[in-house]
Amino acid sequence: MASGDVIEIIGLIAAALTTSGFVPQVYKTWRTRDVGGLSFWMYLALFSGTVLWLIYGIYTESRPIILANIVASTLTFIMLVFIFIGKFRR
Amino acid sequence: MASGDVIEIIGLIAAALTTSGFVPQVYKTWRTRDVGGLSFWMYLALFSGTVLWLIYGIYTESRPIILANIVASTLTFIMLVFIFIGKFRR
Repeated sequence: MASGDVIEIIGLIAAALTTSGFVPQVYKTWRTRDVGGLSFWMYLALFSGTVLWLIYGIYTESRPIILANIVASTLTFIMLVFIFIGKFRR
Repeated sequence: MASGDVIEIIGLIAAALTTSGFVPQVYKTWRTRDVGGLSFWMYLALFSGTVLWLIYGIYTESRPIILANIVASTLTFIMLVFIFIGKFRR
Protein backbone atom coordinates (compact mmCIF):
# COMPACT_ATOMS: atom_id res chain seq x y z
CA MET A 1 0.00 0.00 0.00
CA ALA A 2 1.48 3.41 -1.03
CA SER A 3 2.46 5.76 1.80
CA GLY A 4 0.63 8.99 2.47
CA ASP A 5 3.38 11.01 0.80
CA VAL A 6 3.29 8.94 -2.41
CA ILE A 7 -0.51 9.33 -2.56
CA GLU A 8 -0.19 13.11 -2.04
CA ILE A 9 2.42 13.27 -4.87
CA ILE A 10 0.16 11.24 -7.20
CA GLY A 11 -2.64 13.68 -6.38
CA LEU A 12 -0.43 16.72 -7.06
CA ILE A 13 0.79 15.30 -10.42
CA ALA A 14 -2.82 14.41 -11.36
CA ALA A 15 -3.85 17.95 -10.35
CA ALA A 16 -1.04 19.45 -12.45
CA LEU A 17 -1.99 17.37 -15.53
CA THR A 18 -5.76 17.93 -15.36
CA THR A 19 -5.09 21.63 -14.76
CA SER A 20 -2.23 22.43 -17.10
CA GLY A 21 -3.95 20.20 -19.64
CA PHE A 22 -6.30 23.06 -20.53
CA VAL A 23 -3.42 25.45 -21.26
CA PRO A 24 -2.54 24.02 -24.73
CA GLN A 25 -6.22 24.24 -25.74
CA VAL A 26 -6.55 27.84 -24.47
CA TYR A 27 -3.33 28.72 -26.36
CA LYS A 28 -4.45 26.94 -29.55
CA THR A 29 -7.88 28.61 -29.51
CA TRP A 30 -6.28 32.01 -28.76
CA ARG A 31 -3.90 31.52 -31.71
CA THR A 32 -6.28 29.97 -34.27
CA ARG A 33 -9.62 31.48 -33.16
CA ASP A 34 -10.99 28.11 -34.41
CA VAL A 35 -13.92 27.34 -32.13
CA GLY A 36 -15.96 25.46 -34.73
CA GLY A 37 -15.15 22.00 -33.41
CA LEU A 38 -15.32 22.95 -29.73
CA SER A 39 -18.32 21.98 -27.60
CA PHE A 40 -19.74 24.90 -25.57
CA TRP A 41 -21.68 22.38 -23.45
CA MET A 42 -18.49 20.53 -22.52
CA TYR A 43 -16.80 23.66 -21.22
CA LEU A 44 -19.97 24.74 -19.39
CA ALA A 45 -20.15 21.34 -17.68
CA LEU A 46 -16.40 21.30 -16.93
CA PHE A 47 -16.54 24.87 -15.54
CA SER A 48 -19.50 24.10 -13.24
CA GLY A 49 -17.96 20.76 -12.25
CA THR A 50 -14.57 22.25 -11.38
CA VAL A 51 -16.28 24.91 -9.23
CA LEU A 52 -18.09 22.12 -7.36
CA TRP A 53 -14.81 20.12 -7.04
CA LEU A 54 -13.29 23.28 -5.54
CA ILE A 55 -16.05 23.38 -2.91
CA TYR A 56 -15.55 19.61 -2.33
CA GLY A 57 -11.80 20.12 -1.94
CA ILE A 58 -12.30 22.95 0.57
CA TYR A 59 -14.66 20.85 2.72
CA THR A 60 -12.42 17.78 2.57
CA GLU A 61 -9.30 19.97 3.04
CA SER A 62 -7.56 18.30 0.09
CA ARG A 63 -4.79 20.52 -1.32
CA PRO A 64 -4.46 18.70 -4.69
CA ILE A 65 -8.20 19.06 -5.36
CA ILE A 66 -8.29 22.74 -4.30
CA LEU A 67 -5.21 23.62 -6.34
CA ALA A 68 -6.36 21.80 -9.46
CA ASN A 69 -9.83 23.26 -9.50
CA ILE A 70 -8.96 26.91 -8.89
CA VAL A 71 -6.84 26.81 -12.05
CA ALA A 72 -9.10 24.46 -14.04
CA SER A 73 -12.23 26.54 -13.38
CA THR A 74 -10.36 29.67 -14.50
CA LEU A 75 -9.09 28.03 -17.72
CA THR A 76 -12.48 26.49 -18.57
CA PHE A 77 -14.08 29.89 -17.97
CA ILE A 78 -11.62 31.44 -20.44
CA MET A 79 -12.57 28.75 -23.00
CA LEU A 80 -16.27 29.58 -22.47
CA VAL A 81 -15.51 33.24 -23.21
CA PHE A 82 -13.51 32.32 -26.37
CA ILE A 83 -16.27 30.05 -27.65
CA PHE A 84 -18.94 32.65 -26.83
CA ILE A 85 -17.02 35.40 -28.66
CA GLY A 86 -16.12 33.04 -31.52
CA LYS A 87 -19.74 31.96 -32.08
CA PHE A 88 -21.06 35.54 -32.26
CA ARG A 89 -18.24 37.13 -34.24
CA ARG A 90 -18.75 35.06 -37.41
CA MET B 1 -19.88 23.35 8.10
CA ALA B 2 -21.60 21.00 5.60
CA SER B 3 -22.35 17.46 6.79
CA GLY B 4 -20.54 14.44 5.41
CA ASP B 5 -23.55 13.54 3.24
CA VAL B 6 -23.74 17.01 1.66
CA ILE B 7 -20.01 16.88 0.88
CA GLU B 8 -20.39 13.42 -0.68
CA ILE B 9 -23.32 14.72 -2.81
CA ILE B 10 -21.27 17.75 -3.92
CA GLY B 11 -18.46 15.35 -4.91
CA LEU B 12 -20.84 13.10 -6.84
CA ILE B 13 -22.41 16.05 -8.74
CA ALA B 14 -18.91 17.43 -9.47
CA ALA B 15 -17.88 13.96 -10.65
CA ALA B 16 -20.97 13.73 -12.88
CA LEU B 17 -20.32 17.16 -14.45
CA THR B 18 -16.59 16.73 -15.05
CA THR B 19 -17.28 13.28 -16.46
CA SER B 20 -20.41 13.75 -18.51
CA GLY B 21 -18.92 17.09 -19.62
CA PHE B 22 -16.80 15.22 -22.19
CA VAL B 23 -19.82 13.52 -23.75
CA PRO B 24 -21.04 16.58 -25.77
CA GLN B 25 -17.51 17.04 -27.16
CA VAL B 26 -17.16 13.35 -28.07
CA TYR B 27 -20.59 13.52 -29.74
CA LYS B 28 -19.79 16.80 -31.59
CA THR B 29 -16.44 15.46 -32.85
CA TRP B 30 -18.04 12.15 -33.86
CA ARG B 31 -20.75 14.06 -35.79
CA THR B 32 -18.62 16.82 -37.37
CA ARG B 33 -15.22 15.07 -37.65
CA ASP B 34 -13.90 18.62 -37.03
CA VAL B 35 -10.69 18.14 -35.03
CA GLY B 36 -8.90 21.19 -36.44
CA GLY B 37 -9.45 23.37 -33.38
CA LEU B 38 -8.88 20.61 -30.82
CA SER B 39 -5.63 20.36 -28.86
CA PHE B 40 -4.11 16.86 -28.91
CA TRP B 41 -1.85 17.89 -26.02
CA MET B 42 -4.85 18.85 -23.88
CA TYR B 43 -6.48 15.46 -24.29
CA LEU B 44 -3.17 13.67 -23.70
CA ALA B 45 -2.66 15.59 -20.46
CA LEU B 46 -6.29 15.10 -19.38
CA PHE B 47 -6.12 11.37 -20.15
CA SER B 48 -2.88 10.86 -18.17
CA GLY B 49 -4.19 13.09 -15.38
CA THR B 50 -7.51 11.25 -15.06
CA VAL B 51 -5.66 7.93 -14.89
CA LEU B 52 -3.55 9.31 -12.02
CA TRP B 53 -6.70 10.71 -10.32
CA LEU B 54 -8.15 7.19 -10.60
CA ILE B 55 -5.11 5.79 -8.78
CA TYR B 56 -5.40 8.63 -6.19
CA GLY B 57 -9.11 7.85 -5.70
CA ILE B 58 -8.41 4.14 -5.19
CA TYR B 59 -5.74 4.82 -2.55
CA THR B 60 -7.89 7.42 -0.75
CA GLU B 61 -11.01 5.22 -1.17
CA SER B 62 -13.02 8.17 -2.56
CA ARG B 63 -16.01 6.95 -4.62
CA PRO B 64 -16.65 10.29 -6.40
CA ILE B 65 -13.03 10.48 -7.59
CA ILE B 66 -12.94 6.81 -8.69
CA LEU B 67 -16.26 7.06 -10.52
CA ALA B 68 -15.41 10.32 -12.27
CA ASN B 69 -12.04 9.22 -13.49
CA ILE B 70 -12.94 5.80 -14.84
CA VAL B 71 -15.41 7.50 -17.19
CA ALA B 72 -13.32 10.64 -17.84
CA SER B 73 -10.20 8.65 -18.77
CA THR B 74 -12.29 6.55 -21.19
CA LEU B 75 -13.87 9.63 -22.84
CA THR B 76 -10.56 11.50 -23.11
CA PHE B 77 -8.99 8.38 -24.63
CA ILE B 78 -11.78 8.32 -27.24
CA MET B 79 -11.04 12.00 -28.03
CA LEU B 80 -7.34 11.14 -28.46
CA VAL B 81 -8.30 8.44 -30.97
CA PHE B 82 -10.63 10.84 -32.87
CA ILE B 83 -7.95 13.54 -33.03
CA PHE B 84 -5.28 11.01 -34.07
CA ILE B 85 -7.50 9.60 -36.84
CA GLY B 86 -8.66 13.11 -37.86
CA LYS B 87 -5.08 14.42 -38.18
CA PHE B 88 -3.92 11.54 -40.42
CA ARG B 89 -6.99 11.15 -42.61
CA ARG B 90 -6.79 14.60 -44.18
